[in-house]
Amino acid sequence: MKIAILGGTGSIGEGFALRWALNNEIIIGSRTLKKAQNAAQSYLSEMKSYGFDISGVRIRGTDNYIAAAEADIVILTVMFNHVFSMLESVYDTLENKILVTPVVPMNKVGDYFVYSPPPQGSAALAIKEAVPASTRVVSVYHNIAACKLKDMKCQVEYDAVICSDDEDARKILFDLTHEIGCLRPLDGGPLAVSNMVESITPLLLNLGVLNGLEDVGVRFC
Amino acid sequence: MKIAILGGTGSIGEGFALRWALNNEIIIGSRTLKKAQNAAQSYLSEMKSYGFDISGVRIRGTDNYIAAAEADIVILTVMFNHVFSMLESVYDTLENKILVTPVVPMNKVGDYFVYSPPPQGSAALAIKEAVPASTRVVSVYHNIAACKLKDMKCQVEYDAVICSDDEDARKILFDLTHEIGCLRPLDGGPLAVSNMVESITPLLLNLGVLNGLEDVGVRFC
Repeated sequence: MKIAILGGTGSIGEGFALRWALNNEIIIGSRTLKKAQNAAQSYLSEMKSYGFDISGVRIRGTDNYIAAAEADIVILTVMFNHVFSMLESVYDTLENKILVTPVVPMNKVGDYFVYSPPPQGSAALAIKEAVPASTRVVSVYHNIAACKLKDMKCQVEYDAVICSDDEDARKILFDLTHEIGCLRPLDGGPLAVSNMVESITPLLLNLGVLNGLEDVGVRFC
Repeated sequence: MKIAILGGTGSIGEGFALRWALNNEIIIGSRTLKKAQNAAQSYLSEMKSYGFDISGVRIRGTDNYIAAAEADIVILTVMFNHVFSMLESVYDTLENKILVTPVVPMNKVGDYFVYSPPPQGSAALAIKEAVPASTRVVSVYHNIAACKLKDMKCQVEYDAVICSDDEDARKILFDLTHEIGCLRPLDGGPLAVSNMVESITPLLLNLGVLNGLEDVGVRFC
């Protein structure tokens, strides 16, 4: 699979790149070409430092548009308030593609994070409205701590609840989630119920601060 | 502590009764006196069948009003659509008491459960509006499977996120949660963010059906 990680120069983008690079071709997208290229280079170095033979590993950086255009699957690793201008800028590249959203709309009110969905009810439903009808939107990976995702020695297994209206796309994300190694994929149902998964993220941030827990994830058992 | 379990004749009420009866006095409330008395009797038998010496165990049944009036702490184990008529009927008994709500407003839309909060934003906030100003509302135990709660041999440890605006009440619920034995109490912040805990329950129900998981709970790690 060719996977574009849009806005992929941050911690969470790094995590996906490292975890998927052994089995897939990774294209880091950024608004700044140079930033994307530097990130790609540093992710390769990071893999080498973990002891992987990177001679066959393909991670490269380019601008968001080219990254999305060249990929089979596009994942959005940007803040909610940047999502829609980004989607507008890559709109036509998304025809018939799988678009993965781990995006969570949230705000801080006083000392606490709160879930702040748009009028559509969730980031996932708002994103579905902002892409071509042929784009298959999958909502997943909201509740994953970036620090644990990019730590390839992390053995703790978290759950990744997958919401989508497209069964083929859901299956592909099940497989990609297994490849990550520290995540168990779970079927969460249609995109319409993504709000209940997205809203766990601000809760996790609050629980971390209030209870002295670090990089909190979730497990359903 | 004297704990009233209002609407306590169902599975979840049974779970709380069995778990707390070793250290507390339990008053089962029901709209029907006889039903409450029968439930109390059967919970005592259940404890005996687990091998506990029940000579000092106090579980009794009465109507909801008397149960609430005689208790230090009142827990609501009724469906969301029954909560407000019940609160109206016991209103004056709740002055200065701790009121515990594990109540989750949810509906089924098609094949899936969805979180359906009232205009206040959560069951907890709506309940706070419906009780005396002196009542200290604590929102907790939404995500606990009744079957596991009432199985006193259940060793799996789940998380119970506690939201309240009253620190003393939160502390008391921390202690009561430890007494339950299969739950880890976590501070979730103020009542205003209870919606993010309540909305996990319909998600758990969906995850159970879609992934063949039974009596699903949640663990933050």
